[in-house]
Amino acid sequence: MKQYEMFELVFSGETLTDRWAQTDLTAEFACGDTAKTVKGFYDGDGRYVIRFLPEIAGEWRWKVTGVVNAEGTESCEPADGSHGLVKAVDTHFEYADGSLFIPFGTTVYALAHQDDDLVEQTLKSLEAAPFNKVRMCVFPKHYDYNHNEPPLYAFEKKAEGSWDVNRPCIAFWHRFEKILKQIAEMGIQIDLILFHPYDRWGFSKLPQQDNLMYLDYLLRRLSAFPNIWWSLANEYDLNMADKSLADWEEIEEFVAANDPFHHLLSNHNCMCFWDATRKNVTHASLQTKGLSEIPRWIREYNKPVIIDECCYEGNLPHFWGSISGQEMVRRFWRCYASGAYCTHGETFLSDDEIVWWARGGVLKGESSKRIAFLRQIMESLPGPLTPKAGGIWSIARLNKEEFEAALPSVPEEMREFFTLFARSIHRMPEQDRTAHLGGEHAWESHCGEEAYLTYFDLQCYGEQTVKLPKDKAYKAELIDVWNMTREVIAESISGETKLTLPGRDNLALLIMRI
Amino acid sequence: MKQYEMFELVFSGETLTDRWAQTDLTAEFACGDTAKTVKGFYDGDGRYVIRFLPEIAGEWRWKVTGVVNAEGTESCEPADGSHGLVKAVDTHFEYADGSLFIPFGTTVYALAHQDDDLVEQTLKSLEAAPFNKVRMCVFPKHYDYNHNEPPLYAFEKKAEGSWDVNRPCIAFWHRFEKILKQIAEMGIQIDLILFHPYDRWGFSKLPQQDNLMYLDYLLRRLSAFPNIWWSLANEYDLNMADKSLADWEEIEEFVAANDPFHHLLSNHNCMCFWDATRKNVTHASLQTKGLSEIPRWIREYNKPVIIDECCYEGNLPHFWGSISGQEMVRRFWRCYASGAYCTHGETFLSDDEIVWWARGGVLKGESSKRIAFLRQIMESLPGPLTPKAGGIWSIARLNKEEFEAALPSVPEEMREFFTLFARSIHRMPEQDRTAHLGGEHAWESHCGEEAYLTYFDLQCYGEQTVKLPKDKAYKAELIDVWNMTREVIAESISGETKLTLPGRDNLALLIMRI
Repeated sequence: MKQYEMFELVFSGETLTDRWAQTDLTAEFACGDTAKTVKGFYDGDGRYVIRFLPEIAGEWRWKVTGVVNAEGTESCEPADGSHGLVKAVDTHFEYADGSLFIPFGTTVYALAHQDDDLVEQTLKSLEAAPFNKVRMCVFPKHYDYNHNEPPLYAFEKKAEGSWDVNRPCIAFWHRFEKILKQIAEMGIQIDLILFHPYDRWGFSKLPQQDNLMYLDYLLRRLSAFPNIWWSLANEYDLNMADKSLADWEEIEEFVAANDPFHHLLSNHNCMCFWDATRKNVTHASLQTKGLSEIPRWIREYNKPVIIDECCYEGNLPHFWGSISGQEMVRRFWRCYASGAYCTHGETFLSDDEIVWWARGGVLKGESSKRIAFLRQIMESLPGPLTPKAGGIWSIARLNKEEFEAALPSVPEEMREFFTLFARSIHRMPEQDRTAHLGGEHAWESHCGEEAYLTYFDLQCYGEQTVKLPKDKAYKAELIDVWNMTREVIAESISGETKLTLPGRDNLALLIMRI
Repeated sequence: MKQYEMFELVFSGETLTDRWAQTDLTAEFACGDTAKTVKGFYDGDGRYVIRFLPEIAGEWRWKVTGVVNAEGTESCEPADGSHGLVKAVDTHFEYADGSLFIPFGTTVYALAHQDDDLVEQTLKSLEAAPFNKVRMCVFPKHYDYNHNEPPLYAFEKKAEGSWDVNRPCIAFWHRFEKILKQIAEMGIQIDLILFHPYDRWGFSKLPQQDNLMYLDYLLRRLSAFPNIWWSLANEYDLNMADKSLADWEEIEEFVAANDPFHHLLSNHNCMCFWDATRKNVTHASLQTKGLSEIPRWIREYNKPVIIDECCYEGNLPHFWGSISGQEMVRRFWRCYASGAYCTHGETFLSDDEIVWWARGGVLKGESSKRIAFLRQIMESLPGPLTPKAGGIWSIARLNKEEFEAALPSVPEEMREFFTLFARSIHRMPEQDRTAHLGGEHAWESHCGEEAYLTYFDLQCYGEQTVKLPKDKAYKAELIDVWNMTREVIAESISGETKLTLPGRDNLALLIMRI
């Protein structure tokens, strides 16, 4: 047993021929004051398995009851290289050991539903790519460019042809977990999508009791994996002909209640966001292109915000699958320079219908190299970024009462102008205001007084005046986010300083304390 | 007297030394059933002038009363080359003679407040530029890069130093009108800004009675100019410490009531739009970057929409003055391909503080050449464009009741998906919805069944399926909006047709009936 690594107890027993999803098998693990109860599962061929994720080192006592009765102790060695589960802390992520995790996601929805060669190729691509999170589904996908049958399905079928959730397909789960483990070995987090609407087999239309039985078995098998996040759905709201809002809430509650280790949990939307203020939701997983609202969402949720879908780099005839590498890179910088995170995907037309976003294969786009450059910069910062407040654009977004409260913090000579400005904004219909302010946004964030990151995006400034603490010294670097260059433009500055800039777009300014 | 051209009656009389703004001088003009009353003005040196704009050809009788009493007739020849006042017709513009006017504006706020050499240079630049409308102010401008004194002011001063609106400065008006006429001779419409907040002289802080007296004199002098539009303000809402909403409404009412020829009338905002549904307002003159809302505004106002400020091409340290030529051209195409219009401006840092957007000079940017290309295309269309409705993105913007009403028009096989989609949208808070949909927008417009224009903007489609009437034949052209190329990609198509596209961004598709 090693801290932060999955531990397994395997027992032999009766070979089951029916109804093996909810085997009566429970284990209690205790170490000092810490105790956890986990459920085991039937793994075929008379194998009964209990999985556990020890989060502290030391002597663990365990006791198994149910169809197997056994007990013992295990010495858990301290972690050497493993960091544990990723957790949400304030508005960023940390591993269990306290080290920072900055997600750089990609999307391969039906990764596990391809033949072995293609899966192998995808994993090789991931190994060379800058991504440390992948969004992927348990169920196969039916959609444009997704017409192949998967090698295996999560359940056996009943005689009449419908899915029998009482009989999970052991071969499916073995193959699936092998893939998950290979991904984990590369240090990549799996944002595991439990349901989705793009379906021709009936997995999106199971009765709710079957949904819960499926989840129960899945959680028994996968909860001790240290690198999995629960994403209740891809586009939950397009699966609402079959699952009501109450069904989705029950699903959320069930996953949270049956996961002894409290993996990250989110739910991804097509249109209306899942309510990220709900207690079981650890972070917001948003599909949106309205990135200028990120600071508001971070403030309202007080949780990390990942823009898990912002369109994909490619040339599909679909709106969502046809942005340039340039635009993808812009969206990444908008997110990170706002204190949020972003997820990549690629959708290039291909004669063989192998499109990265769903089936994997090879990366063809121009953005991933630049995402690697961004990741390197983000990981060199002294800590997580949060949106910068206080400028006219953040004050412009305050409501009347908040504005009155904030006004004393505005320099006196600016108050009349800010007031005129705010009074006009407060008269705007909400729709006009949001559209208007969306185009006026500055992507600004900071890490305390240690680092300030601004992405200038479309702005081609010839100069900018920065306002820094007067009692600290800073270095200013100009970053060309597309050409991947970094140039120090000021070695040591403090207080209010005018910087000369080259007057072209797509640049970022990183100011770090020296 | 010529149809659509200004006609002047000039009389000699007493030389006035005080209070000459509101001379008692009125003329009635009548031709057949048409009759108009206009007010004359004192023009200095004992000159009394009456200006009239004959909109129909024929015999006009006139009768002057007040400080001058005279009458006579004039034969008005039919127009030869002049088109008359531009009017708003539905959601587009037409000259009085019924020919289409498609505005392509630029911005030179303080054009008339520069020395003669610079004015001359600006007019030469305008002559070579693609613009047929210029936004410019009556009052001088004080702001960053605008520190020079103007040669003349609109009023004389009182002994104590304040402005005496009873004594308009005749030399100012002579010089100003000379400039207006030079611009008119180039076929350029003047969007004349009557008030603005960027002021150090006190013109923005006149008492309301003085505002009205100034307007009265201005309207007597300028109403018969055939190429002037009234823009009540630049950023009226930043001038609300001195003028209340009621004051602005009174100004609007006064201008409308005292302009016998009903020039176009608008009011330009910084933040909250002036209400373009008001009866005196002929079109919306908007400052905004939220261009995806254009179809809604066109629908709600049922008047032409001009995005009169969408940021300027340049490298100033200001957000609004630092977009690239590329981005300016994108914004122009977004507007025109939505059935709206756009206005240009340039803001390049310059050692001599001569920045086009305020003071004129020479054009330095890269967008104006591409705006010329766009103008050529727009003027080759068979008629005005209106936003295309009916796609998922326009239906997505409907409220619940409108959606239910529109659903039967959706093809049956799409109804379930549209319903799921719409139900989710209707659950969204307005702010989230607007931000979200703003990023999902397709820039699509049409001219009946004669022409269809789509600007693909950021989308890099490798193919697109177009749905055209089955009983008509069309030619499809792919337009590279930056490189200014047009390529016929289909010679004769009808009905549903798949087009192969090059998979890069910044292209437009123009489909014209053959």
